[in-house]
Amino acid sequence: MTLKLGMVGGGEGAFIGAVHRIAARIDGQWDLVAGALSSDPARARSSAAALGIERSYDSFAQMAKAEAARDDGIDAVAIVTPNHMHVPVARAFLEAGIHVICDKPLASKLEDALALEEVAARSGKLFVLTHNYSGYPLIRQAREMVARGDLGRLRLVHVEYVQDWLTEAATGKQAEWRTDPARSGAGGAIGDIGTHGWQLAEFVTGQTPSALAADLTSFVEGRAVDDNAHVMLRYASGAKGMLWASQVAVGNENALRLRVIGDKASLDWAQENPNQMTFTRFGQPKQILTRGGAGAGDAGLATIRTPAGHPEGYLEGFATLYREAAQAIRAGDTAHVLPGLADGLSGMRFINACLKSSRNGGSWTELGG
Amino acid sequence: MTLKLGMVGGGEGAFIGAVHRIAARIDGQWDLVAGALSSDPARARSSAAALGIERSYDSFAQMAKAEAARDDGIDAVAIVTPNHMHVPVARAFLEAGIHVICDKPLASKLEDALALEEVAARSGKLFVLTHNYSGYPLIRQAREMVARGDLGRLRLVHVEYVQDWLTEAATGKQAEWRTDPARSGAGGAIGDIGTHGWQLAEFVTGQTPSALAADLTSFVEGRAVDDNAHVMLRYASGAKGMLWASQVAVGNENALRLRVIGDKASLDWAQENPNQMTFTRFGQPKQILTRGGAGAGDAGLATIRTPAGHPEGYLEGFATLYREAAQAIRAGDTAHVLPGLADGLSGMRFINACLKSSRNGGSWTELGG
Amino acid sequence: MTLKLGMVGGGEGAFIGAVHRIAARIDGQWDLVAGALSSDPARARSSAAALGIERSYDSFAQMAKAEAARDDGIDAVAIVTPNHMHVPVARAFLEAGIHVICDKPLASKLEDALALEEVAARSGKLFVLTHNYSGYPLIRQAREMVARGDLGRLRLVHVEYVQDWLTEAATGKQAEWRTDPARSGAGGAIGDIGTHGWQLAEFVTGQTPSALAADLTSFVEGRAVDDNAHVMLRYASGAKGMLWASQVAVGNENALRLRVIGDKASLDWAQENPNQMTFTRFGQPKQILTRGGAGAGDAGLATIRTPAGHPEGYLEGFATLYREAAQAIRAGDTAHVLPGLADGLSGMRFINACLKSSRNGGSWTELGG
Amino acid sequence: MTLKLGMVGGGEGAFIGAVHRIAARIDGQWDLVAGALSSDPARARSSAAALGIERSYDSFAQMAKAEAARDDGIDAVAIVTPNHMHVPVARAFLEAGIHVICDKPLASKLEDALALEEVAARSGKLFVLTHNYSGYPLIRQAREMVARGDLGRLRLVHVEYVQDWLTEAATGKQAEWRTDPARSGAGGAIGDIGTHGWQLAEFVTGQTPSALAADLTSFVEGRAVDDNAHVMLRYASGAKGMLWASQVAVGNENALRLRVIGDKASLDWAQENPNQMTFTRFGQPKQILTRGGAGAGDAGLATIRTPAGHPEGYLEGFATLYREAAQAIRAGDTAHVLPGLADGLSGMRFINACLKSSRNGGSWTELGG
Repeated sequence: MTLKLGMVGGGEGAFIGAVHRIAARIDGQWDLVAGALSSDPARARSSAAALGIERSYDSFAQMAKAEAARDDGIDAVAIVTPNHMHVPVARAFLEAGIHVICDKPLASKLEDALALEEVAARSGKLFVLTHNYSGYPLIRQAREMVARGDLGRLRLVHVEYVQDWLTEAATGKQAEWRTDPARSGAGGAIGDIGTHGWQLAEFVTGQTPSALAADLTSFVEGRAVDDNAHVMLRYASGAKGMLWASQVAVGNENALRLRVIGDKASLDWAQENPNQMTFTRFGQPKQILTRGGAGAGDAGLATIRTPAGHPEGYLEGFATLYREAAQAIRAGDTAHVLPGLADGLSGMRFINACLKSSRNGGSWTELGG
Repeated sequence: MTLKLGMVGGGEGAFIGAVHRIAARIDGQWDLVAGALSSDPARARSSAAALGIERSYDSFAQMAKAEAARDDGIDAVAIVTPNHMHVPVARAFLEAGIHVICDKPLASKLEDALALEEVAARSGKLFVLTHNYSGYPLIRQAREMVARGDLGRLRLVHVEYVQDWLTEAATGKQAEWRTDPARSGAGGAIGDIGTHGWQLAEFVTGQTPSALAADLTSFVEGRAVDDNAHVMLRYASGAKGMLWASQVAVGNENALRLRVIGDKASLDWAQENPNQMTFTRFGQPKQILTRGGAGAGDAGLATIRTPAGHPEGYLEGFATLYREAAQAIRAGDTAHVLPGLADGLSGMRFINACLKSSRNGGSWTELGG
Repeated sequence: MTLKLGMVGGGEGAFIGAVHRIAARIDGQWDLVAGALSSDPARARSSAAALGIERSYDSFAQMAKAEAARDDGIDAVAIVTPNHMHVPVARAFLEAGIHVICDKPLASKLEDALALEEVAARSGKLFVLTHNYSGYPLIRQAREMVARGDLGRLRLVHVEYVQDWLTEAATGKQAEWRTDPARSGAGGAIGDIGTHGWQLAEFVTGQTPSALAADLTSFVEGRAVDDNAHVMLRYASGAKGMLWASQVAVGNENALRLRVIGDKASLDWAQENPNQMTFTRFGQPKQILTRGGAGAGDAGLATIRTPAGHPEGYLEGFATLYREAAQAIRAGDTAHVLPGLADGLSGMRFINACLKSSRNGGSWTELGG
Repeated sequence: MTLKLGMVGGGEGAFIGAVHRIAARIDGQWDLVAGALSSDPARARSSAAALGIERSYDSFAQMAKAEAARDDGIDAVAIVTPNHMHVPVARAFLEAGIHVICDKPLASKLEDALALEEVAARSGKLFVLTHNYSGYPLIRQAREMVARGDLGRLRLVHVEYVQDWLTEAATGKQAEWRTDPARSGAGGAIGDIGTHGWQLAEFVTGQTPSALAADLTSFVEGRAVDDNAHVMLRYASGAKGMLWASQVAVGNENALRLRVIGDKASLDWAQENPNQMTFTRFGQPKQILTRGGAGAGDAGLATIRTPAGHPEGYLEGFATLYREAAQAIRAGDTAHVLPGLADGLSGMRFINACLKSSRNGGSWTELGG
């Protein structure tokens, strides 16, 4: 009844691997049965043993091959390595006919990401990119409201994703690879969290900016990548936007916020208290919409597990992607709401455009192919 | 490696059964393998099949007996029936040598609850009462701060647990049994949610009031139990308190809030945004403490799964009780932080004292034995 | 064009005197021309000189007489002495045919207050009691909404007025007289701030509780009056309430909050951010109403000076009473919304009932005549 | 004892004139004795009569001349006309030797403003520009904290000033002149409210950006000026910033917010609840600082009228400028904290740079002379 999941990366001590494992468990749709949890085989084995994972592999290549050959091989693999390994691992599993659930961003370089597109299309397999914030029930509701025209014609999109954990020179495993261009990509904050903000805005509005002007900064001496990004956005529709991503914004833990403003109404949602969202129709009192509460629409209600007032959080939003991936695999569905390759490619184009704009002094830059 | 769990009650459509199942899954410590999910055997079977539970029983008595006899029988049973069945079911499993994880309140009558005390003691088995709000990381931190003396000598305890879903005459399965004294007990709001507030205050402060004055009301015509309770509290230590439980408080979804005030500092926590708590030392600026954030103590940190800014919610707090139950069972531990029989009995004495006070016109009433 | 104001009490260093003076100035309706600012004639004179007040008197008695005799005598006197002097001063001016604007509470003893009723009636003069919180625009709007039936039949009234400035043993002039029964009255927190909460609830709901049970405490050793009060309320209409007044509630500056809940909708307002109020219709999303914003009614709009989003505060609410007093005096109006003797007497009865209940162990006590 | 004030503009129905009159009254430092309240002499006279202003003039020129000639002539004039008249009126009064308190922005064109500089210098008179938001006590405290180094080296400045009242095509007197380039200047939102945000950031940080990139939009068809402005900022110090000004941001009444982030700590303040500000030291819990509350510094305390918890608002902040103007005039002081010509010129340069950048497609533009 449950589907079988494998994992590449995510050995002991890795934050995001543990998150994927919980997310996969929450709705009881997945069993984690195989893994290549580290590029160091000994560490991979000890991690697998500690987690009770039956089959441990020394490399992802070996794992893809072996699992594809088994009758009871995994249905999907979760990729939770540093960014530069996302594409090679995804390619191996897609080519082995195994569905892929991959952490974001898609790649450390756009070219790598583009190469994957063809592989994925050929494979006919599901490719999910875990832009987990799009799994929050109120984000689903926001998307539904925008699509239904509740906000009118969109004018403004403001997105912030600000943290402060890199305020000082990086220490620790997490900080190290996330500020190393070779492993994380040339984008720092812009890649690590800016892409989340970009995708969230895209997911809710259904629109992608056509041009941007970006001012990237590395405030901490010696840091090789940006730790703060100011970006102005222009949409083909005439809408305008601003995006701020920062990892030196003292006083902020994980402050992702999205405001969407149309000519009839507006929405305002913040990730750190994700169970409420304000909605204001022009000329009317502001309303506080709650997850699953009065006025919740179908899209939001479809993703909740507990009634209004019983808060769901980060892990539940993440779990929704795993649940929907299971549903899509079972249904053989290719048309689904899940973030995937298109989101990943859009994110890579966003990073590239930011880097290009910033290199050109912050000039306006088209979002390229 | 995982422990085996059975479940009594919690068939399709039951809110709290689904919550227990997710809570048991989140940390990967439990496999749900057996159930008597309904008192109607056909419904029990179809629910078990729908949930992929291997062994379905027609009755809890049959289940306790059969599981005790198996080599691979369940380690613990989760009891999620209406309140009046908690004690008979718990007794059957404890007597069969099986650990019990029981939903609250402990019973519909204090005498039933008292009888269980001896059974549990004799069994040597774990009895967990799922006062899930005590599983929130910041509640653990609050308890630690009070115990350490951060607040000084406690003076005031204010607890509110207010909802509005019973504002009008009850409809639906949930509303029906919760307002039926035969199944829910003589307390309405006071039993269903007041006991949560009472336990939370007790859990954080380490003190139990010695007397109370209660003014219970049934605002909705024809309702057999209270839907609003005003209670004043006195502690032997000289501290004073107020407790408000309501299910007709229009504008509130699940608004549980606890304020504890000492002569040096105070805490303020609200369940609907459980990832922050304010802490104020007298004469200093108010601080916003966050789950896992700056200044978090050991107790809070021990229960978190995601870093600060990545909100955890209701299900994670609930899951912490399941994780700790697994730890306690593995360790053969009887000294643990988990809410259990003592909390349940205290809750029953609270309900009884409220009912007695209210019958006597709201007069001051000692908390009896 | 402006009216002429005198002041008794309020010499240099007195908080509330300065507040009255600003409140009288804001709308340009009053000129402060005379005063007996201190019971110490030298201090009275120096204070008057410092404030540019033309006519300084050595005593209130002398002032009442002299001003009544002048053609250009004061239209009204503001009384801002300690509580026990309110009645004697008010009596002197009323008997001299001068309107009175008096700080609250009305008196330090109910009997004194009752005596004033007859004097006031005989005088035909205006008696305003500056329960200033009733001057806030959103409080006016709340009153209007309740009166219009927007909340349906009222069920619950919850009022808190909590501060922390008396957490430790009192020092300073303010703290001293406010904790001295001879000057402040037998009620401590209950008189100083509890009466504000009581009046606010009465003002908004249009109802006065018929009985209460009060648990008064003096947490600070050696304090002669209560510094914390827990009170449960019953209304003749069947509504119930709770009132909490405290001056030892660490973490609270001046936290007056009123929640009114009916069977159709509810309101929630807090003084420290007085420009917004939440309003929730049962089964609908919570709305944030703003002072002068969308949906503001006539009563609220009549009292604002700046558009929505331009916050008004404590002084403006206070000033509204002065403006309305001027309007009432000019119109010779006796039917006005201003708090007056009835509010003051109700507050004295509230204090007395609390003291009586508390002496009787917190038993239920009728609000007497 | 009080100073004498005149007013140009601000006839009946004008919002900002009424605000200036209240602000001037609050601290009892000014008497309004003369006015040219409208360019229409009849309306000027009727407005003056309605307001009880003794001397009404048909034109500002006549007024400047006549008042300068009187022994009891006005000490200062308040200019509350539409923007294009600020400079001519200011010039007339400065040349007549009368102090000026002028509403913002300084002018409708930079050249006009520059001309004023020399006039003001020659006159030796005070020129106050009522950037009233700089009068809020917590803004004074923020400025003091930044100057003292509490935030460390500044890295980020984020300012938003967003409203929604021009979401649809403008109607009403206010909306009309504010969207008419001839009367308001070529900047729309950028001039009307963007300059407030710009000045506030400058006031608190003590720094002025050296370059900006602006993307101005007129969302409403047929509107001749911008109604939304996105601006990125660069400081010579290496700090970066973003500024968003909008009058079509549905759901916002008057949402001015300033965030300043250094390498040690950050501040966050919002005008609509101006009595609190959050302050976070890196690695420490966020603190809620309150106006006049724990930890308030000298600068904040010097400007408050009521204790913490008794909110002050927009009018009090405005009044502080009037009080300080009186103090400066009395002291013959030219070194004061009051916003003046330098702020006004900076604001004009900001508008010009935004317009220039926007005309050049949003390119980076130096702040010119």
